[in-house]
Amino acid sequence: MKKFINSVDNLLDESLHGFAKAHSDIVQFNAQPRFIKRIKSSTSGKVALISGGGSGHEPLHTGFVGTGMLDAACPGQVFTSPTPDQMLAAAQAVENGGGVLFIVKNYAGDAMNFEIAAEMLDCPHETVLVCDDVSFPKSHSTGRRGVAGTLIVEKIVGAAAEAGADLATCKSLGDRVNLATASMGVALSSCTVPALGKPTFEIGENEIEMGVGIHGERGRERIAMSSATEIVDYLSGIIDDDLRPQKGQSALLHINGFGATPLMELHLIYELASRYWEKQGINICRSLVGNYTSSLDMAGCSITLSLLNEELLRLWDAPVHTAALRWGC
Amino acid sequence: MKKFINSVDNLLDESLHGFAKAHSDIVQFNAQPRFIKRIKSSTSGKVALISGGGSGHEPLHTGFVGTGMLDAACPGQVFTSPTPDQMLAAAQAVENGGGVLFIVKNYAGDAMNFEIAAEMLDCPHETVLVCDDVSFPKSHSTGRRGVAGTLIVEKIVGAAAEAGADLATCKSLGDRVNLATASMGVALSSCTVPALGKPTFEIGENEIEMGVGIHGERGRERIAMSSATEIVDYLSGIIDDDLRPQKGQSALLHINGFGATPLMELHLIYELASRYWEKQGINICRSLVGNYTSSLDMAGCSITLSLLNEELLRLWDAPVHTAALRWGC
Repeated sequence: MKKFINSVDNLLDESLHGFAKAHSDIVQFNAQPRFIKRIKSSTSGKVALISGGGSGHEPLHTGFVGTGMLDAACPGQVFTSPTPDQMLAAAQAVENGGGVLFIVKNYAGDAMNFEIAAEMLDCPHETVLVCDDVSFPKSHSTGRRGVAGTLIVEKIVGAAAEAGADLATCKSLGDRVNLATASMGVALSSCTVPALGKPTFEIGENEIEMGVGIHGERGRERIAMSSATEIVDYLSGIIDDDLRPQKGQSALLHINGFGATPLMELHLIYELASRYWEKQGINICRSLVGNYTSSLDMAGCSITLSLLNEELLRLWDAPVHTAALRWGC
Repeated sequence: MKKFINSVDNLLDESLHGFAKAHSDIVQFNAQPRFIKRIKSSTSGKVALISGGGSGHEPLHTGFVGTGMLDAACPGQVFTSPTPDQMLAAAQAVENGGGVLFIVKNYAGDAMNFEIAAEMLDCPHETVLVCDDVSFPKSHSTGRRGVAGTLIVEKIVGAAAEAGADLATCKSLGDRVNLATASMGVALSSCTVPALGKPTFEIGENEIEMGVGIHGERGRERIAMSSATEIVDYLSGIIDDDLRPQKGQSALLHINGFGATPLMELHLIYELASRYWEKQGINICRSLVGNYTSSLDMAGCSITLSLLNEELLRLWDAPVHTAALRWGC
C-alpha cells in the first residue's frame, strides 16, 4: 500500500485539520468529538442540517458544509460509522431553534448511531434516510444503500432550510428527492482501506463489478470489461427500469467518479449517458460531473438521475457556498 | 488497461463533447479544429487569453475557460501538443481588439506550436511561458517544465484582462506570477496513456519518484517510500531553496492531486505543508486543494507555493466563473 500518511491512527485528524485550514473561511473543525461545522451562524429558527458517515468518500460530507447546504458533518473513521456522541455534539453546536434534520445514508451502522443520537436529543428532530442505489431490489433485506444521490438531497433540502422551510417541510422534501433519485455504479478496480493495507476485493484484468457499493461491496454481477457505451447503457437501463421517468420530465444527470478515474473519462461517460436519456425523451437540464462521493482510490464511476420539477430545480440552483460546491454567492 | 472508452481514436472528442454539454452555460466546443471557448463574448478591447496543451491534465486547461480566466483552450491528444491551426482558429474566434496572450507550459512541442501560431496571427500578441517546476535546475537544457502553477498564472492574468489591463501589462503580469511560483511533485504510481495501454514507467512497491513530471517524466531521484511528513519536507525544502521566500511574505499554497490520490490524503498534505511554511514565517493566506493539473490516473501530488502581494491577491480573489474554479459570480 502506497499512501500519503504518517500513521493510520492520525490520518483522519491530520486530514480534517488540513481541510478546515484550507477552508477556514467556511468551516471549523471540532476535534473532540469530531465534527465539521459552518463558521457562520445560521439565522435563528433555521432547521439545522446534519449529515455524516464513514470517511473516505470526500468531499462527501465535510465538503458540503456551508451556506445553503449542511450545518455540520460528522466524519467517522475510514468506511466506519461516526459514533452518536459526534452527532449529539454537532447538533448541540448548530441547533438554533428550528430543530435538527439528520440526513443519513442507509447503512446499518450509520442508521443505528444516528438513531441513538436522535433519541438523546432534546429538541425537535427528523431523519431522512437516503437509499438511492438501485443495484439491489427494493425488497433487499437491509434496504438499499445511500450513495451519490445523497448530495442532491443535501443540496436541495439545504436550500429550502436556508429559505426558512420548517422541519416537517425539510423532512418531506428530503424524502421526495430521495424517491426521485436513482444511482448505479461500476468498479474497474478495488479501493484500499489504509488500516487494511490491501485491496478490499480482487478483480480480474478483464472484469468489472456492476452495481458496486461505495465501500467496494459486491454489486449485482461481475461482467467482462465492455465499451463505455455498453457500460453506460447497462447502468442507465437499470436506473430507467427502476425510476421510470416520463418523457419530457426534467432531470439532473450526475456522473460521480469513485476517486481514481480521470475527469476526461467522466466527461465521456456524461456524453454517453446524456445521449441515452435524451433518446428516452428526458430533458437533462442540470449536470454535475466529478469526484463527489468517492471511494478512496477506487477506479470507477456511478450514474445518478434525479427527476427535478421546477420547485426542485429552483432549490438546486439556489446559492451554495461550501468547499466542494459553490455558486451564486 | 481498464478505462471508460469506446476507442482510443474518439476518446478525446467524446470527452470534449461531454464537457461542453455538462457546462453549456459557460463554454462551447469547436470540433474542427478543436478548441473550447467561452459562450459569452468578452468586452471589446479585452485581451484574449488562450492556453492549451496535451489532454489528460483535466480540468487544466478546458476547465479554466470562462469569465475571469481563459477565453479559449486548445486541447491536443493525450499528452500531445495541440497543432498551430487550433491556436490560430481559437485566436480568430476570441480576439476582440485587445490582442492575444498565449499562456504556454514550457514543453518543446507546445512552445514550438504556439510560436508557429503566433507567427501566423495578424493581431498584436504575446506569450507567457510557464516554467514553475523546480525539480530540475534553472540551467536545464530544455528549461524547466510548466506544471501546476500554470493555473495561478491563468487566474491572475485572467482577472487583470477582465478588468481592462492591456496586452503588455498582461504579459508582464504573467511573467511576474511565473517567477513568483514554484512547484514540485511526487509520484506513487505511473499513469497509463490510453493509446499505449500500459503504465508509462515501472516503479517498485516501496519506491516513489521525487520531482516527477505531469506526463510521468523522470524526476530528480527515486527514493524509498517515506512518511507523509518526510515527503512534504523534501518537496517543500526544494521549493524553499529555489523560491527563497522572505519571512512575512504572503502566499497561496496549492496542493494538486495527479488524479488517483484521495482528497483525504491531499488535505493531509495541505496540513503538513502549511505547517512547514508557517514554521518558515510565511503567511499562507490562500489555499487550493484538489485535482487541478492531473496526470490521468497517476497517484501522487505536487506542492506549489506562489508568493502573492496585495495586488496579486486581489486578482486571485476576483470573480471567476469556469467549470473548475468558481467564486464571486
